[in-house]
Amino acid sequence: MFDKILIANRGEIAVRIIRACREMGIKTVAVYSEADRESLHTLLADEAICIGPAPSTQSYLNMERILTATVAMKADAIHPGFGFLSENARFAELCQKCNITFIGPDAGIINKMGNKSEARKTMMEAGVPVVPGGKEAVHHVEEARQMAERIGFPVMIKASSGGGGKGMRISRSMEDFEANFKNAQMESIKGFSDDTMYIEKYIEKPRHIEFQILADQMGHVIHLGERDCSIQRRHQKVLEESPSAAISEELRQQMGEVAVRAAKAVGYVNAGTIEFLLDKDKNFYFMEMNTRIQVEHPVTEMVTGLDLIKEQIRIAAGEPLSVSQPDIRISGHAIECRINAENPSKNFMPCPGLIKNVHVPGGNGVRIDTHIYNDYKVPANYDSMLMKLIVHGKDRTEAIAKMRSALGELIIEGIETNIDFQFDILSHDAYRDGDVDTDFIPKFFPDYVR
Amino acid sequence: MFDKILIANRGEIAVRIIRACREMGIKTVAVYSEADRESLHTLLADEAICIGPAPSTQSYLNMERILTATVAMKADAIHPGFGFLSENARFAELCQKCNITFIGPDAGIINKMGNKSEARKTMMEAGVPVVPGGKEAVHHVEEARQMAERIGFPVMIKASSGGGGKGMRISRSMEDFEANFKNAQMESIKGFSDDTMYIEKYIEKPRHIEFQILADQMGHVIHLGERDCSIQRRHQKVLEESPSAAISEELRQQMGEVAVRAAKAVGYVNAGTIEFLLDKDKNFYFMEMNTRIQVEHPVTEMVTGLDLIKEQIRIAAGEPLSVSQPDIRISGHAIECRINAENPSKNFMPCPGLIKNVHVPGGNGVRIDTHIYNDYKVPANYDSMLMKLIVHGKDRTEAIAKMRSALGELIIEGIETNIDFQFDILSHDAYRDGDVDTDFIPKFFPDYVR
Repeated sequence: MFDKILIANRGEIAVRIIRACREMGIKTVAVYSEADRESLHTLLADEAICIGPAPSTQSYLNMERILTATVAMKADAIHPGFGFLSENARFAELCQKCNITFIGPDAGIINKMGNKSEARKTMMEAGVPVVPGGKEAVHHVEEARQMAERIGFPVMIKASSGGGGKGMRISRSMEDFEANFKNAQMESIKGFSDDTMYIEKYIEKPRHIEFQILADQMGHVIHLGERDCSIQRRHQKVLEESPSAAISEELRQQMGEVAVRAAKAVGYVNAGTIEFLLDKDKNFYFMEMNTRIQVEHPVTEMVTGLDLIKEQIRIAAGEPLSVSQPDIRISGHAIECRINAENPSKNFMPCPGLIKNVHVPGGNGVRIDTHIYNDYKVPANYDSMLMKLIVHGKDRTEAIAKMRSALGELIIEGIETNIDFQFDILSHDAYRDGDVDTDFIPKFFPDYVR
Repeated sequence: MFDKILIANRGEIAVRIIRACREMGIKTVAVYSEADRESLHTLLADEAICIGPAPSTQSYLNMERILTATVAMKADAIHPGFGFLSENARFAELCQKCNITFIGPDAGIINKMGNKSEARKTMMEAGVPVVPGGKEAVHHVEEARQMAERIGFPVMIKASSGGGGKGMRISRSMEDFEANFKNAQMESIKGFSDDTMYIEKYIEKPRHIEFQILADQMGHVIHLGERDCSIQRRHQKVLEESPSAAISEELRQQMGEVAVRAAKAVGYVNAGTIEFLLDKDKNFYFMEMNTRIQVEHPVTEMVTGLDLIKEQIRIAAGEPLSVSQPDIRISGHAIECRINAENPSKNFMPCPGLIKNVHVPGGNGVRIDTHIYNDYKVPANYDSMLMKLIVHGKDRTEAIAKMRSALGELIIEGIETNIDFQFDILSHDAYRDGDVDTDFIPKFFPDYVR
């Protein structure tokens, strides 16, 4: 087992990793930017070293400084957390060259899964369903029409060079196809001087369902069930839960087997997540694989009883998984609310500043992961997440009631937060009915995505 | 189900009950003394009513005021928590007369179990082992000698009128019996003018092991495994855990069956606890039954996944138990540390005062039950418990590591606490080895019991 781990991250995930190390008897080194001198991770770790100014490129993203710090502090492994360098293949490679264990998969896997078209190709070869179409470029309406027919309506018409919605059209039947294709192509020619188009299946009102994977160096791969992360705002997850109200035990088993197959296809090692889109008819399609721990990993911990950070560390140290697939029981229901420093009256702009008072809820089935404290100044340089509030109940109804109760007790004074917004989501009938998809917030809370 | 529950208590247990009610959709009424205007339970409940001055006899122990408040606020049930009126048979009786549901067993059962000699008699009749001896008074050394022989050594020689250690002697064999008996009797005659003596089995270095019971109105009785509460200071529990390091699965089943039999013998209804002494040879003896929820109930919740307060409420409302005995699985290991406002340098005297800053640990498997907050003034009128810090790990070793880590993060500024003392207990080799009995603190921390 490692003697000392350097945590190449900040905020609550750095605190989370420090706690896991401490419980395992592993020493910890925090790295911090000049803006994070008073950050909780800096104060909690056994040792801490400043690696540069506040801008991430000069500190948390600066590979050389982090590696130098690791060598100087005599740490034998680096936990990258999420974000920053966690999915940077070059960094994983440099760690290996410096004889430091990168707690995650190796550079080759990160690269393969980071390249979306290569990931898609690998998954298709492994028999993992992907969103149909989109493989071959088309230029003429006639070949496009044939492709649409083959894929089946509705389809998404996409300009190869497009972006930000430009050169994109949804077509729901052959009647409207030609007009939509021509409009989209015209937009692309005008905007990007490119007539190259793709046709792919349009997934209507999908759920975002992801499967947690654990894989050790001996080739054992298991899944820990799913997380439903459909509640999103501008492609940012807001609230996550496990299990999903849309997934039967049979579908869980089916998707889980596919997720394990996907991980095995790339020889995956360590914790990872396979993200799927799930349509109304329960068809699911591979979206991408995240080769790191996720923000929302606690909901999986709450329903399985496992500690995913400890599993990551054990796997990286060469130990076999502590559990096998038949040991995994999904017990009860967990929900996580991301509490962000955002100003609801200013279109949810991040709003750093001085926290004057924190009071957290507690009691049975309530978990708090945070790096904030009384009189902590939230720096403007980083993301706006302040806290993850996680609850566990015997079923979804109890978990919702518990989260509403906990949000009602949570006090963060001094800066604006999205606490009330989270409460509104949990109070919405559609949410309570489990009737959610990625369009939930734009549909029911249009003010929040203006 | 009840529409509104009045909570006849204060502090963290009142907060705990309010949360359970809120999650069940039941309205809550807090009662508070003049010293508790700014207490968390007063602030959190849906409604709150002042019932008198700080001294408990004029507020939390004043049955008339509490019943009047219940009627005035139109609550249909009272949860008494622990302490105060929770084991007061007269209060349970008055509730019934006022047509208010007392959330606990009925007056008859409280009375029966509250009278120690009657409880002992009932248990003996039900075949529950009790500490042998002690039934018949003896006056002469010859009859005492015969009784000691029957009971088996070591025995405790006790003066009927004795107290504070006076008139008490331990005898380990027949050789020292006569001298010890005569000395003890002499002391009693001199001190209390009474030569009446009792002989009972002396349980050496016992563990305090208690079994949690749930019983519904249909006669279903189950146990939820044990709690080991051997770490005590002056007969006050300091740290509790579940399961006990001393109890095998076989012994758990055996003791659990006895506990269920004991509860059935008195027709018990609601949550209750059967307390046993366990000797080094794994013999166990009934000590007493507590006819209320206990401070340390969260460790049972953490290893069973049940919510005991909600079970209490459901039982009182006439619902059947939500689980049956075969459903109960003891999963992992939980420890609770009682965090008290005590001054270690002043012989652990309670030290109320203004809390200037609170920072609580969090993360995976950490639970906090507390009523304190930043700038809360701890009143001098009530007990010194500020918080229950509870952790859950996959086994005892992980739970100990987690508790040490969590205690290290806990900050309570402004008043003295026993946080460091708890840390010292968890760091002691004998504790880590699971080698504990009720003599643990006097033996290893003699400074704390002077």
